[in-house]
Amino acid sequence: MRQSSTVCLALCQYAPQVGDPEGNRRRGSSWINRAADAGADLVVLPELASSGYTFESEEEALLCADDTGGSTISEWARLCRERSLHVVCGFSERAGGIRYNAAALLGPQGVLGVYRKAHLFNDEKSYFAPGDTGFPVFSLPFGKVGILICYDIWFPEAARVLAVRGAELLCVPTNWVANFRKQAADDRGWTMGDYACVGLATQNQLFVAAADRIGEERGVQFVGCSCLVGPDGSMLEGPAPVAEEALLVSTIDLEWARRARRRTPRNDTLGDRRPDLYGELTSAEGAGRS
Amino acid sequence: MRQSSTVCLALCQYAPQVGDPEGNRRRGSSWINRAADAGADLVVLPELASSGYTFESEEEALLCADDTGGSTISEWARLCRERSLHVVCGFSERAGGIRYNAAALLGPQGVLGVYRKAHLFNDEKSYFAPGDTGFPVFSLPFGKVGILICYDIWFPEAARVLAVRGAELLCVPTNWVANFRKQAADDRGWTMGDYACVGLATQNQLFVAAADRIGEERGVQFVGCSCLVGPDGSMLEGPAPVAEEALLVSTIDLEWARRARRRTPRNDTLGDRRPDLYGELTSAEGAGRS
Repeated sequence: MRQSSTVCLALCQYAPQVGDPEGNRRRGSSWINRAADAGADLVVLPELASSGYTFESEEEALLCADDTGGSTISEWARLCRERSLHVVCGFSERAGGIRYNAAALLGPQGVLGVYRKAHLFNDEKSYFAPGDTGFPVFSLPFGKVGILICYDIWFPEAARVLAVRGAELLCVPTNWVANFRKQAADDRGWTMGDYACVGLATQNQLFVAAADRIGEERGVQFVGCSCLVGPDGSMLEGPAPVAEEALLVSTIDLEWARRARRRTPRNDTLGDRRPDLYGELTSAEGAGRS
Repeated sequence: MRQSSTVCLALCQYAPQVGDPEGNRRRGSSWINRAADAGADLVVLPELASSGYTFESEEEALLCADDTGGSTISEWARLCRERSLHVVCGFSERAGGIRYNAAALLGPQGVLGVYRKAHLFNDEKSYFAPGDTGFPVFSLPFGKVGILICYDIWFPEAARVLAVRGAELLCVPTNWVANFRKQAADDRGWTMGDYACVGLATQNQLFVAAADRIGEERGVQFVGCSCLVGPDGSMLEGPAPVAEEALLVSTIDLEWARRARRRTPRNDTLGDRRPDLYGELTSAEGAGRS
């Protein structure tokens, strides 16, 4: 691991499979090793990489869940130690009697943290509890990293909280579904999720790294298009293909995010905020129904 | 004016000139008439259309400012009456001894409201006071309209407050400057402002209509690229050319924004918000310096 602001990032786009936790563990391990072979310091796996997405029953959801000391997270943490890297992986977390759509941050020292998805999409509401971790920022050797999961990126408040807390890179394990308005990629090969990532990067002057899955589960189609976006909104890697496995590898310097954010003494994109005018965002009435 | 959710929108891209308030009044009138001839119900002029942008002195800034009863706003309001339309126009507002970078909403009945720019960019801080209006939503015959000005669109909180309050269309008078990181348009002809508009539209499921200026003033280059974006983030009109005048005219149905926002009982992009987790956005410490 380089002790600087430079990091070699790898986004893994593949198809986990619901109902096959052992297979998903092997698939994840294989992609982590492949990313390590490509020189990665930080590897991002898709949302719910341990479990698959479209549960059919409570029993199946339970079967596919695991705690942070369970076999899947333990194996992936072991690989972090062996290969000297960090991993952000989506997983179905069992914590006591509650399940979360979560992402773990793993490193050579083991489990460094967990983020639990704040904004649950559609049927996820049947199988998971809403996240209770807030939006933690993790200090890694190369810089400050936040995590969002899929639907979270349509809630600009979440990325903004992470930016205010100093995040320079957002890792986004995701399972973008085809029926989420734009069916798939446009004529440029971008899907709606890619535009959402560019929006967050532009607004917050940080890197956004989204690792999506591909394939189909029980009639739900996923759209790939994993991407890495720079702090000025430029597309650095991807979007990856809609339906093919992909490993996007790129070396980035998080110093870019630090520089982009504070530009001149008169022009500071975080310091110029007007918290006095945003009250509606945190009031209970602001919760909805216009 | 159609009494429905349908509106014919016109975005006027041209070059106001600093130090020439009479000329700017005539230019604005001419563009409003041209938009009316094209069938517009709602016309958007650029930021500071009455005054130009790059003031050289306090005296010049004072000369170019006007109150809402002044000659420029009065003439443009008269045109709204004559041509039966609404106008959103950037102007330098003098209110008592204070100046604001503002936008007026004008209609057949006169001045319907004023929004004062909340986030001042760079040297604007020398010539204007920070806006004190918050983010008002205006109910027009065809739907609910909010206004943001230029740099405001890099603060996702502002558009989000407007969305929570029910806005279906954001009108954005703007003066995007070339040195705002991306120098001009990318190989697709989009500038950074266009990506920012797509981000806001995607996150908030509303239309974003940005009318930019072109030309140069005292070494400051403006980049055109005015655009109209749909509630799914699709580019409906534009981006207009970087350096040429343009009138973008499009008939849109604001019902699309209403439909996009509440999709299923289980999936409500505003109702799914988590105000309990966004506290940092409205706290004084959240004001900056990470």
